Amino acid sequence: MFEASGLQTDFYELTMMNGYVASGMADRRACFDLFIRSNPFQGGYALAAGLADAVRFLKEVRFAPEDLDYLKSFGFFSAEFLDRLRDFRFRGSLLAVPEGTPIFPRAPILRLEGTLLETQLVETLLLNLVNFQTLVATKAARVAGEARDGSVLEFGMRRAQGANGAFAAARAAYIGGAAATSNAYASARLDIPAKGTHAHAWVMSFSREIDAFRAYAKTFPDNCLLLVDTYDTLNSGIPNAILVGKELRAQGKELAGIRLDSGDLAYLSRQARKMLDDAGFPKAKIVASGDLDEYLIRDIREQGGRIDVYGVGTRLVTAEGDPHLTGVYKLAAIQEEGVWQPRMKLSENIIKETLPGIKQVWRVFNAEGVMEGDVIALDEEGDPRRPDGRLLGINPLAEHQRKLHHPAELQPLLEPIMKDGEVIAPQPSLEAIRARAQKQLARIDETTRRLANPHIYKVSISERLLELRNKLRSEKRPEE
Amino acid sequence: MFEASGLQTDFYELTMMNGYVASGMADRRACFDLFIRSNPFQGGYALAAGLADAVRFLKEVRFAPEDLDYLKSFGFFSAEFLDRLRDFRFRGSLLAVPEGTPIFPRAPILRLEGTLLETQLVETLLLNLVNFQTLVATKAARVAGEARDGSVLEFGMRRAQGANGAFAAARAAYIGGAAATSNAYASARLDIPAKGTHAHAWVMSFSREIDAFRAYAKTFPDNCLLLVDTYDTLNSGIPNAILVGKELRAQGKELAGIRLDSGDLAYLSRQARKMLDDAGFPKAKIVASGDLDEYLIRDIREQGGRIDVYGVGTRLVTAEGDPHLTGVYKLAAIQEEGVWQPRMKLSENIIKETLPGIKQVWRVFNAEGVMEGDVIALDEEGDPRRPDGRLLGINPLAEHQRKLHHPAELQPLLEPIMKDGEVIAPQPSLEAIRARAQKQLARIDETTRRLANPHIYKVSISERLLELRNKLRSEKRPEE
Repeated sequence: MFEASGLQTDFYELTMMNGYVASGMADRRACFDLFIRSNPFQGGYALAAGLADAVRFLKEVRFAPEDLDYLKSFGFFSAEFLDRLRDFRFRGSLLAVPEGTPIFPRAPILRLEGTLLETQLVETLLLNLVNFQTLVATKAARVAGEARDGSVLEFGMRRAQGANGAFAAARAAYIGGAAATSNAYASARLDIPAKGTHAHAWVMSFSREIDAFRAYAKTFPDNCLLLVDTYDTLNSGIPNAILVGKELRAQGKELAGIRLDSGDLAYLSRQARKMLDDAGFPKAKIVASGDLDEYLIRDIREQGGRIDVYGVGTRLVTAEGDPHLTGVYKLAAIQEEGVWQPRMKLSENIIKETLPGIKQVWRVFNAEGVMEGDVIALDEEGDPRRPDGRLLGINPLAEHQRKLHHPAELQPLLEPIMKDGEVIAPQPSLEAIRARAQKQLARIDETTRRLANPHIYKVSISERLLELRNKLRSEKRPEE
Repeated sequence: MFEASGLQTDFYELTMMNGYVASGMADRRACFDLFIRSNPFQGGYALAAGLADAVRFLKEVRFAPEDLDYLKSFGFFSAEFLDRLRDFRFRGSLLAVPEGTPIFPRAPILRLEGTLLETQLVETLLLNLVNFQTLVATKAARVAGEARDGSVLEFGMRRAQGANGAFAAARAAYIGGAAATSNAYASARLDIPAKGTHAHAWVMSFSREIDAFRAYAKTFPDNCLLLVDTYDTLNSGIPNAILVGKELRAQGKELAGIRLDSGDLAYLSRQARKMLDDAGFPKAKIVASGDLDEYLIRDIREQGGRIDVYGVGTRLVTAEGDPHLTGVYKLAAIQEEGVWQPRMKLSENIIKETLPGIKQVWRVFNAEGVMEGDVIALDEEGDPRRPDGRLLGINPLAEHQRKLHHPAELQPLLEPIMKDGEVIAPQPSLEAIRARAQKQLARIDETTRRLANPHIYKVSISERLLELRNKLRSEKRPEE
């Protein structure tokens, strides 16, 4: 667990906060959106995670006396500002997409309202927490999706960013669809199933492989899964495992299975399956590990690999292929004399333009229960459907692209989580989050779930939001 | 900071430990090596980091009563084993390459000696801590190397693996050569310089950019660095910054500089430099950020970019391009009836073969003080030079490749850090580690420091180690 210090932030948030205090703006109400700019891994979706840690931080964030001493030492923070930090609390509101919900670019997944002071401070850590866990949950969903009937174990602790990085990765991987983790600490503290048997060192610490296998079988007769690639998989490891399997059976026990950790896993798993079947062990499982990711798992499956359990480590916890998520946190509105004024960032790069105003995201499902698109509308629009039940969505990047949805089901995605600094929504269990993720992922069209070059899910905006956006665009340009 | 729980490990370490207890092997002395298999980023070296956290873990690791309850709940751990964990301490020895030392593949950087029980437990977290910090320190060294006279700020908190991942990344980046961090918490707790001014949100929270700049200048007249790309860098941001610079000068203050965060940084920095110079602000600094890494920095420099300070975030803390290090932890020797028996892992893939025996690494420097190669020798060889002062190194992957070094200077790299569970070496300050890194990096030949396709630094083995390796190879093959 991280310390919920007010210093858990980028230094510039603190200098800006001091600026807001000095300019008499610190207590103005502001609304910030957190959203992703693009899907990771060139895929068609992301899977939201990290909210629980974000809520803990918002609830607990404080400045300790030594934190204030640290800031004071710079010499340029004002006494008034430091004084305000002394009893700083986050007293704002939070709406958020629940963890385990598929999300798409540009639609806000967190919406904060509060004073400029408090909403600015928390930017950095909210991004940190949501970016990383969402990234790993998404990777896990991709990996588990390709594993099909096989199950996925998260094995990445030794390659994660520190002990707590590994902890967060285990949690996010479980949300995304991993069935278990190798991380005993995460298992104990988060109640995630733990898995693991032995390493090469076990085999090497005996003079002979067969002695190592026999000793393991003696210790764990009911959970005997043997790593067979220390010396020679096909000529030594598997024959020795079969021998031990027969010895176990003579005692009324069954060999749980074998693990492959090197070599060509498609070829070796086919050979291993045949050797185990021929020897009378059709129920012994084949676990495989070694540089696995969603692409390699798909290839192994398509090449007739016979793997029951995939151990996925490094490439899962480091989100290989795209090790960062593009989450950003942008000012959407600010009060001037008590009236909300929408704000947007312009950019020569239209992708970096933001959407102004206080917004809600509406998810459209079709008659088959499949997600059809998200429509971002102004909060004040309420249910944005026309009286005839239809809902117009406009592509914010290409206004001529419009779609008239006829939702069979319409869900507002941003749910109230905190109000005036207090948590007002019950926090779901990790099991419930994981179950939600599995259900929701199944409602994404399979063409959008494709690993690469997926069908682009439509995230559009309402007519009123388009009008507001275009009005602000024309006011800000050409110069200011 | 992470909790130094004994559960901070892969589950299979615990099952193996139980197996060692059941097999009467738990108290046999073992020696493990931690080393990297290849350099990250297709580069020529890595920079060791993470030892301080590793030492803290070894010193503090304990099993709390709830940790034992968790293990008991599985039903298959023996009472004898759980009993041993109750008063578990790491009571072994540690030798290590000091943080801030360049390292190369295959040469051990940590060497642990202790009971099989204790050395097995700590494998996972040692790998986790050393892998990640070494990876980020190496990336920082590459980035800072390309920045030349420019300085590098670590800006990556929002894209790191959680709050503690960001903390460790800030530390490692500083060791590798970053001059400061944006992470206030890491700055406060580790005494790293902090930097940062304001974000787009500052500008957007005012009606006009010029108002935002004036307010910032008023708050921080001595540290006024303005972000100029919120609306239009060349037509609005820089002219407004110059205007505020003139207003500051009228009060006897100087504009510190500007920051660019989007667009083509080579082009914009040249334009910005010219505009600032023409307006009479030749000393105003240009800070740039936005998807920077060592390659982009080199290109910008070669294209005449005029950047004084590079803010490097995402690609530094996530080690973009190679988000994991290949550190492994392998059994090198084990005692049988009080006598050390060397051990090695064979593999069809020769790269995965390990080096047997208790070893020391000797670093050869030539007469110019440049690193010439590392020679791995058996510990019992002591100083492995021949009587004539020469030292033969043999390529372990190609025995016919031999080099007779004539070292001008020879250093044993593995230094005693812990003995019988106690820390026996003073821990250097972060400043000292960083200074060591800068000095040592300069002693790597520049052809080995090249970003890609570098000259391969020679890591060889002594004749006696070669003999031992080949003897074990022939004993283990073909079958067992």
